[in-house]
Amino acid sequence: MDKKLSILVSNDDGIFSDGIGALIRELQTIADVTVVAPETQQSAVGHAITVHRPLRVREVQKDGKFFGFAVDGTPADCVKLAIRHLMPVKPDLVVSGINHGSNTAISVIYSGTVSAATEGTILGIPSFAVSLTSFESNVDYSYAAKFSRTFALQVIERGLPNGTMLNVNIPPLSEKEIQGIVITRQGKSVWNDEFEARRDPGNRQYFWLKGELVELDEEEDIDQRAILNNKISVTPIQFDLTDYKMIEQLKGWKIGK
Amino acid sequence: MDKKLSILVSNDDGIFSDGIGALIRELQTIADVTVVAPETQQSAVGHAITVHRPLRVREVQKDGKFFGFAVDGTPADCVKLAIRHLMPVKPDLVVSGINHGSNTAISVIYSGTVSAATEGTILGIPSFAVSLTSFESNVDYSYAAKFSRTFALQVIERGLPNGTMLNVNIPPLSEKEIQGIVITRQGKSVWNDEFEARRDPGNRQYFWLKGELVELDEEEDIDQRAILNNKISVTPIQFDLTDYKMIEQLKGWKIGK
Repeated sequence: MDKKLSILVSNDDGIFSDGIGALIRELQTIADVTVVAPETQQSAVGHAITVHRPLRVREVQKDGKFFGFAVDGTPADCVKLAIRHLMPVKPDLVVSGINHGSNTAISVIYSGTVSAATEGTILGIPSFAVSLTSFESNVDYSYAAKFSRTFALQVIERGLPNGTMLNVNIPPLSEKEIQGIVITRQGKSVWNDEFEARRDPGNRQYFWLKGELVELDEEEDIDQRAILNNKISVTPIQFDLTDYKMIEQLKGWKIGK
Repeated sequence: MDKKLSILVSNDDGIFSDGIGALIRELQTIADVTVVAPETQQSAVGHAITVHRPLRVREVQKDGKFFGFAVDGTPADCVKLAIRHLMPVKPDLVVSGINHGSNTAISVIYSGTVSAATEGTILGIPSFAVSLTSFESNVDYSYAAKFSRTFALQVIERGLPNGTMLNVNIPPLSEKEIQGIVITRQGKSVWNDEFEARRDPGNRQYFWLKGELVELDEEEDIDQRAILNNKISVTPIQFDLTDYKMIEQLKGWKIGK
């Protein structure tokens, strides 16, 4: 290619996370990388955008060099601000990640990582989200980052249809332990979450959310199942939430009559 | 019916908003209403949930009587906390609203109002979101509230399939000005948003998001189009975001090879 590729990177774990660092190091070998990421951890923010207060942007240095822009907002804010304002020319690709922890099944709708890539797609840029499916504190992002580099080139070359993004989940394994790549569907698994009530030193009650994903899917082509089989999962995602099957049924309701 | 109906009400404009007040007054004529809503305005929070800090709950009085529970979290937090913890028995229905402003087209994925109903659906309760499609400061919620009461009875009687919720948008008109009810699809319209850069008194820059929805849909059965035609829009919504058409195409990519 004549012109150097341009890639926008964001995430939801924050600009100082290890996952975004590993991703950027790999992508810099193939493209100019612009980093616009949240100042702080933004997990489970869903597709939140900030509308009731303005956003602040801070230039972040790492190892004595300019590293990227930290935004005091959500992942979707970061991508919107990058493409609408900070970048003089639209990037060829948006990559969000590498998230620390999986984004499969119903978690897709809670995911800040997915939402950054969603925002890229809404703004007309091919985009993917990438997550390492381990919640352990000490994880190795190196293979996930290497895969992301190869995949980035493939997505740029192939392009994506308008309104479609890709949600990639990678098991925390070495290249030779990975058992393959599966094109998957979003699973139906949900969280069995509950709240743990505690009392603060002043005896006032507060509630911690806790829970785990309940596996409801057995099929091999489900995102969460691929991960359990030590495979990389790639799910194409779109944002028309209309339940088309339900439309005819609703027409029979004679609503308001 | 023998047993009195139980309805959970939440919203994203906050527990003190006029829209939730009007909705509750109407629903109390048909059911026991439990109110669990955000302490503060939560517009555009998407399907955010709070995982990095605990939640606080405060009992709110209105006119000298217990009114409901205010939560220092998002709409999805409110519904999750209500169903998983605060309510001894699951409600028959979750209603989120009445939102001040429309939730159509791409705004569905940014909407806190929709996310409260989504969370009800995820937890297995029939749920709908209702929005009054006016951003004027002084709006009349009375017809929207009255419609919501009739519709609530209909949704409880008919039931909804697992994983499907209903997104209702109502024009800010009187009953006789409303031109009918349309079962709609989510529109493709997007925001032409941009950021306005300003400087604070200390000369530091900050960015305000602004923009408007660009109408891209002409068909009569699109949510946003129904509103422009002075009709009530009812869109069935589901949360499997998989782009099924894209799956076969991706299989041909030979990813990672």
